[in-house]
Amino acid sequence: MSGPSGWTNGFIAVDWGTTNRRAYRVGADGRAGDELEDAKGILSVPSGGFPAAVAEIRARLGDLPLLMAGMIGSNRGWKEAPYVPAPAGLDDLAKGLVRVGDREVIVPGVSYAEDDRADVMRGEEVQLVGAVAEGLADPNELVCHPGTHNKWVLLRRGMIHSFRTVMTGELFSLLKEHSILSDLLGGKVDTGDAFCAGVRKSLNQEALTADLFAVRARVLLGKMKKEDAASFASGVLIGADVHIGLDTPTMAQITVIGRPELTRLYAAAIKVAERDAIEVDGERCFVAGAKEIAKRIE
Amino acid sequence: MSGPSGWTNGFIAVDWGTTNRRAYRVGADGRAGDELEDAKGILSVPSGGFPAAVAEIRARLGDLPLLMAGMIGSNRGWKEAPYVPAPAGLDDLAKGLVRVGDREVIVPGVSYAEDDRADVMRGEEVQLVGAVAEGLADPNELVCHPGTHNKWVLLRRGMIHSFRTVMTGELFSLLKEHSILSDLLGGKVDTGDAFCAGVRKSLNQEALTADLFAVRARVLLGKMKKEDAASFASGVLIGADVHIGLDTPTMAQITVIGRPELTRLYAAAIKVAERDAIEVDGERCFVAGAKEIAKRIE
Repeated sequence: MSGPSGWTNGFIAVDWGTTNRRAYRVGADGRAGDELEDAKGILSVPSGGFPAAVAEIRARLGDLPLLMAGMIGSNRGWKEAPYVPAPAGLDDLAKGLVRVGDREVIVPGVSYAEDDRADVMRGEEVQLVGAVAEGLADPNELVCHPGTHNKWVLLRRGMIHSFRTVMTGELFSLLKEHSILSDLLGGKVDTGDAFCAGVRKSLNQEALTADLFAVRARVLLGKMKKEDAASFASGVLIGADVHIGLDTPTMAQITVIGRPELTRLYAAAIKVAERDAIEVDGERCFVAGAKEIAKRIE
Repeated sequence: MSGPSGWTNGFIAVDWGTTNRRAYRVGADGRAGDELEDAKGILSVPSGGFPAAVAEIRARLGDLPLLMAGMIGSNRGWKEAPYVPAPAGLDDLAKGLVRVGDREVIVPGVSYAEDDRADVMRGEEVQLVGAVAEGLADPNELVCHPGTHNKWVLLRRGMIHSFRTVMTGELFSLLKEHSILSDLLGGKVDTGDAFCAGVRKSLNQEALTADLFAVRARVLLGKMKKEDAASFASGVLIGADVHIGLDTPTMAQITVIGRPELTRLYAAAIKVAERDAIEVDGERCFVAGAKEIAKRIE
């Protein structure tokens, strides 16, 4: 049964991506309870398999309504939830909700198009409106949201005003798994000297596709220790990313939302670029955003 | 048997790379004869398998001495041929030849190191000195040598003075085979409007890692036809490459050496950047360079 009562008694918020899903039970009191995280992203669900995949979540977290966001709403997901065009805020996302069953809704992604630019997001929008609702991000601010695809998002009056995606995380993975740099990039990435040198290189003069090959040459010629290669390459990629992101508006402070192991790297790179960065946990923002959207379900 | 006579009676020049090899018979009269091309790059040769792999070449092209260049001289090849530091010319390459057996020599690669830069090449050096010897490239010129890894090479007095590698070709392959763009990049790349628009995007303001993701967003939002995606993405990558290459010295004309299907793309991109490009066939340069080096074997 739909209706406000179904949601005010508590619900499950699901961040359902391409390769992973994370589900959080939100109690009637609005507090987050048990959660579930596994590798059952949309690509692992067979055709017609979503009802079973959802039943599995309910068996673990309770027989509650489900609010889902992320690639679950893409054309490869359960049911397509058309993009809401930016600028978009909480009310636009709530209006754009797509119902799958009586107790299952999917949050739409957000699109951005302007002259020569085009961009899309799915999943981050919930975290962004959640961060604003929770007072973790200023309603007028530049947000950096690292992940497989990093998003630079300009917030205005609490709405997603414009944004730009940079495929840094995916590129690093591709290089690590399949490229001529594979045997150099397996090491741990930390934010020490090698990382900062990589960041500086990209901030000073972006020549990403050359600087990446140079990682190999530096090690071959003894100009860099092999164990520094992963951090340096990560720095080069994230430096190019920050260079693109900070190109937009001049803001002294950037809020970095996401998983701590990634926000840490971006915050360090943003500091090399002489801006302030505040790290915020993405899971907390997701639950906050889901709650705000659920409140608006009629 | 070594000695000049062994080589003046003709030899086989082998461009032996990571995934492919190409061998050319050069007659006593200096003319190129039969050739062989297959996928037996160094990574496909089992440990201790090079003598057999070489016997196979001789069985096809004749029982002649072998002059080999490329990754065959790397630490994963038959025998390591240490890099000759730039500036390096024909005589330096001849002096740096590494003998494997009485009738097998490997041409050394070239390294470049300066302050903050480090780079290496293996195989292209033969084509470069060959292009100069044959009058196909000016002894003082900027050369672009596309391949898996594109090289921008500054020639001075016929020598390899400095160079920079850009991993454009490898990145395009990685994106095509393993990335979120895979299903968009399978189409044919041509030098039409979509390609030139991609080149222009990177020449105007390099934001490669963002512009690549935007390929997907453009198609999703109906701003670009799916069949234009491969050409546009190729244009973005090659545009960024040309942006890096032309950053070095201001030269009105660039010689583009390599395989025709690649020189065609780079020449088109260089023209978008309002410079002249002359395309030269890399195989012809390779044979010319091998001949010049073979003449110097004692």
